[in-house]
Amino acid sequence: MLQLYIGNKNYSSWSMRPWVALRQFGIPFEEVMLRFDSFDTGSAFKQSLATVTPAGTVPVLVDDGLAIWDTLAIAEYVAERFPQHALWPRDGHARARARSLCAEMHAGFRALRSHCGMNIEAHLPEVGARVMAEQPAVRADLARLTQAWEDALAHSGGPFLFGNYSWADAFFAPVVARVRTYGLPLAGPAAAWADHLWASAGVQAWVAGALAERDFLPFEEPYRTAR
Amino acid sequence: MLQLYIGNKNYSSWSMRPWVALRQFGIPFEEVMLRFDSFDTGSAFKQSLATVTPAGTVPVLVDDGLAIWDTLAIAEYVAERFPQHALWPRDGHARARARSLCAEMHAGFRALRSHCGMNIEAHLPEVGARVMAEQPAVRADLARLTQAWEDALAHSGGPFLFGNYSWADAFFAPVVARVRTYGLPLAGPAAAWADHLWASAGVQAWVAGALAERDFLPFEEPYRTAR
Repeated sequence: MLQLYIGNKNYSSWSMRPWVALRQFGIPFEEVMLRFDSFDTGSAFKQSLATVTPAGTVPVLVDDGLAIWDTLAIAEYVAERFPQHALWPRDGHARARARSLCAEMHAGFRALRSHCGMNIEAHLPEVGARVMAEQPAVRADLARLTQAWEDALAHSGGPFLFGNYSWADAFFAPVVARVRTYGLPLAGPAAAWADHLWASAGVQAWVAGALAERDFLPFEEPYRTAR
Repeated sequence: MLQLYIGNKNYSSWSMRPWVALRQFGIPFEEVMLRFDSFDTGSAFKQSLATVTPAGTVPVLVDDGLAIWDTLAIAEYVAERFPQHALWPRDGHARARARSLCAEMHAGFRALRSHCGMNIEAHLPEVGARVMAEQPAVRADLARLTQAWEDALAHSGGPFLFGNYSWADAFFAPVVARVRTYGLPLAGPAAAWADHLWASAGVQAWVAGALAERDFLPFEEPYRTAR
């Protein structure tokens, strides 16, 4: 059985990606949750993680002793391991574009990620409005994301980015979470896709877990002092 | 014929990765060099690039009208397009570990990348010594890189990270360039691998191109005012 090591569901955007995809495709796995007590070297989180991977980040997928320690590598591994599921689009051109989008997400959109940390249970539209007004880099990130989603949807016709659900949707699920928490502006086909993705089985199962945690971590919450 | 859009060879670490791998495997491609005049929206670089990709970064691989705009997506595309070449290790476990390393490189090691920008023609050991003394995050990056390289070499026996040359070596070639420019400490098997990689045909061809450019870009050089 696959084991997926993750952080707090409310906060860990990288953990969310493989978890929702595995769940959406009905691929069985055991979840191992390592609570974010802190990210210092001596923290329980880092100490527990060190027994699984030297890279020091979640998620990690473990398959029969083999540790795969980065979301994009996990994506490729799962796609190869379960070829009966179209985790990547079957069409070669669509697959190349889906991978380009996921890789762009993997290294990019840092302004949005740092100013609007994932926080599923919170509702912070006033923070979102202030960030959008004050941070041109966040506006640029959101504009590029919207363009990328609209391009993909125009090619495929929806309802997911490449027609059927794929890694590309899972990779942007935490961004949709941010759009909802911070009330970021989204309209038209991109907004319809975001709603469709939010309603999908994998995302809904993750969100239910996040809401059940009730674990307030001050270092993850620059905008609040309590839940 | 594949077209690969790149930036300045002396500075563009991301461009280097697919270029050296394609060259090393003897895969023919046309190089399209877009000089880094600046990264502002109105720059010639950004304007030219916008005709190829909306994502705004090099490298971009174009295959018969299809643009693939991120290094990791290019890596997967080329591996699928040329299955006769083992761009990823043939062994499934080694492939998963190689992809984990490449993905870790893709999103990580930001302290090393920002303090020791790639600058192939320069020799700046005094800068390297100062950065290593003053920046614990750079020391941590180099420690993790050394550990990752030693682990891979211990598994494979070398001479490349996974035995034969693969995407993993190409992904770390710009880091080896930094080790050389800034005189960063490296010893034992990792140092031997770095020398072996530096002497490889793809890297040597890129370095020759970088040395021939003689294009000093002040915004890429916080540590010098001239060549």
